Amino acid sequence: MLFKNNFVKKKSVDVCLSPELLHLYDVGNSIVVMVDILRASSSMTTAFANGVRELIPVATLEECQKLKEQGFLTAAERDGKKIEGFDFGNSPYSYIESDVEGESVAITTTNGTLAINKSKQAIQVIVGSFLNKTAVNNYLKQTNENVLVLCAGWKGQANLEDTLYAGAVVEGLSDKFDIKADGAMIAFNLYQNAKDDLNGFLENCNHVQRLKKQKGILRDIEFCLKEDMYSIVPVLEGDKLKKAMI
Amino acid sequence: MLFKNNFVKKKSVDVCLSPELLHLYDVGNSIVVMVDILRASSSMTTAFANGVRELIPVATLEECQKLKEQGFLTAAERDGKKIEGFDFGNSPYSYIESDVEGESVAITTTNGTLAINKSKQAIQVIVGSFLNKTAVNNYLKQTNENVLVLCAGWKGQANLEDTLYAGAVVEGLSDKFDIKADGAMIAFNLYQNAKDDLNGFLENCNHVQRLKKQKGILRDIEFCLKEDMYSIVPVLEGDKLKKAMI
Repeated sequence: MLFKNNFVKKKSVDVCLSPELLHLYDVGNSIVVMVDILRASSSMTTAFANGVRELIPVATLEECQKLKEQGFLTAAERDGKKIEGFDFGNSPYSYIESDVEGESVAITTTNGTLAINKSKQAIQVIVGSFLNKTAVNNYLKQTNENVLVLCAGWKGQANLEDTLYAGAVVEGLSDKFDIKADGAMIAFNLYQNAKDDLNGFLENCNHVQRLKKQKGILRDIEFCLKEDMYSIVPVLEGDKLKKAMI
Repeated sequence: MLFKNNFVKKKSVDVCLSPELLHLYDVGNSIVVMVDILRASSSMTTAFANGVRELIPVATLEECQKLKEQGFLTAAERDGKKIEGFDFGNSPYSYIESDVEGESVAITTTNGTLAINKSKQAIQVIVGSFLNKTAVNNYLKQTNENVLVLCAGWKGQANLEDTLYAGAVVEGLSDKFDIKADGAMIAFNLYQNAKDDLNGFLENCNHVQRLKKQKGILRDIEFCLKEDMYSIVPVLEGDKLKKAMI
């Protein structure tokens, strides 16, 4: 048995730079790490770290509204802005500054919830961000399945912040996993360039420029780029995100 | 008039990391630079530099075969390999080591010709490679339209070598053009990392690994990474590539 184990093939880590490219990847044989740094995956991580019991990602504002009428808390964002009539937008501080202990929250965002919905045939879908970087990497090493980091991007295009985080996952797994393809190499190299000053590196990226037009957004961005604030891993169970048992 | 010109908006340069994302870009208002470093766009550039009169990119082997029967020279490659029965594969050396002066060549490749066909609604389609890097950048500055570098990639996925070349275009245009979006930032940063040793940087990339299984391919790869060997720019006119008048 020991001899046989020597020939067990290493698992691989790969990066899909946009949900529009997901059909090119072997999703069914991978754990998908959904990432939308600014701000869906950072906010989801923060929600669980602050006691939220479950998050229900929904695609449309209408579905979110229906769940509100059923008594759920709701978080809704489009094009970086909170939608009127819902409890929260897409700021991680919503979950820090409100009492959300034990709550269920329905959530819809421009890119993040779409990315989750596209990943449902994966072995498992988890949510990654800089805030739970090491927790996610440890979880992936322990689970030992092929890993596909899915960058939510911006309306189908690749973006810097998600690609950077993908590079952090590749870096974290590179001693135990094969780097499968060039998408992972691109992300890995980008992260090497940027990791000592993520804030400075991202200052001119598109989404930061877009977000900066909003009042009070800078503290959100700074928060979303902090590494290892939390040691929790959100995981999709059926149609709901829960806190993984780790 | 001088006063008015001060307010002329700068043109932009952007990068589309895969033909599968092309529908997300404003192709109709851009010059598209098609790039497939290993090896279609490098071979096309080399063909014109060695006297080829026109290249006819076709999507299928059947179309290529029909043109062969009409007396054209033909170049056909799939999955990195020359297809039996055609004159050339995808090596730039085909055009250096054969007498191609004044010839018309029908060409079909795995990724490159597809990328050209997808770009036809552009203001203009030109072909870029490291071999004609400065000539392309000068052409783009002179033409002064929005620029979209289209990476042919590998079967829909982004690849390192095309993204690197895209970064070289962004670098070359960055003093006169706005960098439009994160795709261009990703490519630009990657090229900064790699430009002092493209060969070393690409040693482990997927396509180089794939190609290396073929005999004699290393000299192709080394050749395709040489900068500014030629000062010609291939441009699409109707269904044919010609040498641009510059």
